[in-house]
Amino acid sequence: MHVTSEQRLADGVREREFALGETPSTLWTPQTTPAPLVLMSHNNGLPKADPRLVARARYTAARGYAVATIDAAGCGDRPRSAADERARADLRRALRAGEPADEILESVVGPLVENAVPEWRSTLDALLELPVIDGPVGYSGGWAALGIALAVAEPRVVAAGLFAGGYVPRAQREEARRVTIPLLFLLQWDDEGNPRQRALDLFDAFGSEEKTLHANLGGHTGTPPFELEDTCRFLDRHLR
Amino acid sequence: MHVTSEQRLADGVREREFALGETPSTLWTPQTTPAPLVLMSHNNGLPKADPRLVARARYTAARGYAVATIDAAGCGDRPRSAADERARADLRRALRAGEPADEILESVVGPLVENAVPEWRSTLDALLELPVIDGPVGYSGGWAALGIALAVAEPRVVAAGLFAGGYVPRAQREEARRVTIPLLFLLQWDDEGNPRQRALDLFDAFGSEEKTLHANLGGHTGTPPFELEDTCRFLDRHLR
Repeated sequence: MHVTSEQRLADGVREREFALGETPSTLWTPQTTPAPLVLMSHNNGLPKADPRLVARARYTAARGYAVATIDAAGCGDRPRSAADERARADLRRALRAGEPADEILESVVGPLVENAVPEWRSTLDALLELPVIDGPVGYSGGWAALGIALAVAEPRVVAAGLFAGGYVPRAQREEARRVTIPLLFLLQWDDEGNPRQRALDLFDAFGSEEKTLHANLGGHTGTPPFELEDTCRFLDRHLR
Repeated sequence: MHVTSEQRLADGVREREFALGETPSTLWTPQTTPAPLVLMSHNNGLPKADPRLVARARYTAARGYAVATIDAAGCGDRPRSAADERARADLRRALRAGEPADEILESVVGPLVENAVPEWRSTLDALLELPVIDGPVGYSGGWAALGIALAVAEPRVVAAGLFAGGYVPRAQREEARRVTIPLLFLLQWDDEGNPRQRALDLFDAFGSEEKTLHANLGGHTGTPPFELEDTCRFLDRHLR
């Protein structure tokens, strides 16, 4: 792990930027280590420096977790092809216009998820070598499709908090029934970017015996602050 | 308040049985008083001595709340007419057989809710005279229809935790949009006694700006224990 910058935050939390090969990564560690690890993803396309992700990560670290995130291939500051950029613009335009977007979703987001899984798994391999990390691994992510793919591919992930999830590629929607770890599924009831019925159908599809849906009034970015604590309490139940 | 029996429980909680006129009531108070009050209802038809209600009440009192429940008219040990008993048996039979039950629901549960509201309000008047009770009032109830009717009729109730809510009489379904207090709405995803879509429609209908749905896998009586703590945390946000 090659640390490129480090800062100390409130509550004894350390925030370190590092690179794993070509993968820019951030690790937050709590005052007391070793600590269980939470993999925290950005929404598809957002950088790992997204302020909402950073705020969630710092809060979660202050609650006693090591938290890691990466810019996976095609995300954040990583190179993107002109074709990718065009396809993403098409997807945004279709969603804004309320047009059918499933085909673009498959061609844009599908490969991003497929490519992200091995990168997150390599990151996990490297992180679990660190003496500051110990215990079971959780996932907490804005990117539901990645959470599903990781939960199926990666037996070391034992619990996941997912942000619903209306635009999840077909492959991950179909994989949902193979997810069996405990889940906390967050839904914004009036989320313009996540069709409610599709999110409810996804929640219904998961194979987990313990799955909880938290739905709150409001749009995409309106998740109430108390859900952050609820997610940590969910992690406490499964990672401690 | 005429106390007929009293016992001391763990964590300094006192449990007192008393009668308000013809209304048998139970009051749990925490170690430290005065405390904010939570009105806790049984499911329609269950007695106030129902073990699940008593367990919820004791837990909530140990978390610092005064908790009160009553056997409202036609409930618990209160007298029931032969016609009421027949109608209830018809309702249970129809629900078990998966037959349309809306007409029986209206004729049986509708009047029970209408009659229960003034009794709960008189109970509230009496309770708020007690020196052990102070502060805002919450409702936490298995009986969603009563919670809706009380939330509309009673301005002293400032927050409500409701158990969804598939079989709510028409009057209360229509009143839901007039409910504006913060709500926590608990749904069991596979509840044979609460059709899921009707419960989701009811959640959608509430006029509250802050409303949260918690849905968990499982049947009617399968609510996970952690939801009890979540309800107390919801009450903490609004009654403290």
